[in-house]
This record gives sequence, C-alpha cells and structure tokens, in this order.
Amino acid sequence: MEITHIEHIAIAVKNLDQAIKLFEEVFGLKCHLIDESRTQKTRTGYFLIGQTKIHLVESTEPFGPIGRFIENKGEGIHHISFAVKNLTEALKEAASKGVQLIDTEPKLSPEGYKIAFLHPKSTRGVLTQLCELPNKHD
Amino acid sequence: MEITHIEHIAIAVKNLDQAIKLFEEVFGLKCHLIDESRTQKTRTGYFLIGQTKIHLVESTEPFGPIGRFIENKGEGIHHISFAVKNLTEALKEAASKGVQLIDTEPKLSPEGYKIAFLHPKSTRGVLTQLCELPNKHD
Repeated sequence: MEITHIEHIAIAVKNLDQAIKLFEEVFGLKCHLIDESRTQKTRTGYFLIGQTKIHLVESTEPFGPIGRFIENKGEGIHHISFAVKNLTEALKEAASKGVQLIDTEPKLSPEGYKIAFLHPKSTRGVLTQLCELPNKHD
Repeated sequence: MEITHIEHIAIAVKNLDQAIKLFEEVFGLKCHLIDESRTQKTRTGYFLIGQTKIHLVESTEPFGPIGRFIENKGEGIHHISFAVKNLTEALKEAASKGVQLIDTEPKLSPEGYKIAFLHPKSTRGVLTQLCELPNKHD
C-alpha cells in the first residue's frame, strides 16, 4: 500500500473542554471544529498540526467505545490513522499479508471520508486506522 | 509555544526486526536508519511518513525504560514528539501554565537535536516530548 501521511492521532480524554484548553493555552494550537457522533457516542475536538490532525475524543456515554477504553486503560492515545491512496486495495493487501482486519470493508468517518481499522494484535499493539481522503479533483 | 509539526511517534516493540518487517512489507514504508542508544538501552528503526517520523523502539535490556514500559503496558505508542521553534522558551511557558515537566532543561536526542519530556499526568495521559530541530541556516 502507499501511505502518504499520518492523517490524525486520536486521543481519548475524560473531559473535552479541559483537553481543548490544554491544547490551546499550553500548546498554542487552535481547535477548528467540535462535532458529536451519535453512533460512536463521542464528542471530538479537531486540531491541525502541519499535515496531521489531533482528534481529542470524549465519550458522551460511559459504555461507548471511548468510555470503555478510558475505563480500561485511562486517558491516552486511542489510535493513529494513516492516509492511503486506495483503501479497498490496502485492506485486501493487508489481509493477504496476514494482518487481522477489524473492518473488512471501508466505512464512513464522521468527517465523511473512508476509514477502516486494523486489529492492534497485528500492528504491535497500536490500534491503526487506514483512511482514504476524497480526491480534491473529483 | 509554537508547534510546527509532529516530529515523530515512538512505538515500543518487543522485536524490532519483526516490527520493521510489518512497516516495510505491509505498510510499504522504508526504514532509512537503525541506531542503538547505549544510554537509553534501545535499538530504534526510523521511518518517514510525510513530515513525521515513526520510531520503532526495541529495548536492548529488560530493565531499560522501554523494556519496563512493555512489561507494564505491552507494545504500543510510547510517546509523541511536537517540534517547537524554541524549546527552552516552550518549557518555561509550559511550566508557568502548570504543566509538570520531566525534563526542566533540554537534553540531546540520539539523533542530535534538543528534546524534553512533559509528564503525561499533565497531558491527558500522553507522554509528550517537545523537540527543537537544528536550524538549517545555522
């Protein structure tokens, strides 16, 4: 597969407003968007650092995926996302090389681009997402 | 402080050779350097994805910092590193805003640039490094 850049790093946080304050007031970054996903049960703050975004992700319900992650492991990095040219091909290639897939088909991210997760058992303990961004020439 | 980009993401791995194989054969990336730090008791493989490096870090001794990390938490992301314009100023600013510092003064990375760690208690569970790259015009 061809990875072009790290699209984002997602950090699970207990309190989004406090985490945004850290990233804005200490790190001098700007939260350009906050959205809420009903399906993921999350509220997310987005920051851009160079070509990579930071997603600060708060659980809106204790038993959502991020709530359970924090319950088990505490706050911290939840996953990283690599941008690839062709997600469907990348998933096929990864599977053919023995990587366990969480998502065998691309699904849509809250931001509207294609994503799929690889299993951290196959990726040295790092929950890894592959994503395909919309072609700006479409 | 002014963060320009994410300099690297460090991933603690049990076996560097196997991890390099994953990143090269599955992700299609190229390990351009392997080095060994006697002080850190680590062997590290370096990859460049866009403007950010991935450091795959193996412990050369069970009781080195990475060996202990893996013993406690398993393989996974160890830290992220934000590049700043002026590290000494950035540390002063972070401390003045209540961030607990692991390194109060910059130290030298194995690659030869200035680095310092912030305490994950102050940064939502994410072990965060700040670094200052050499000025290419010096």
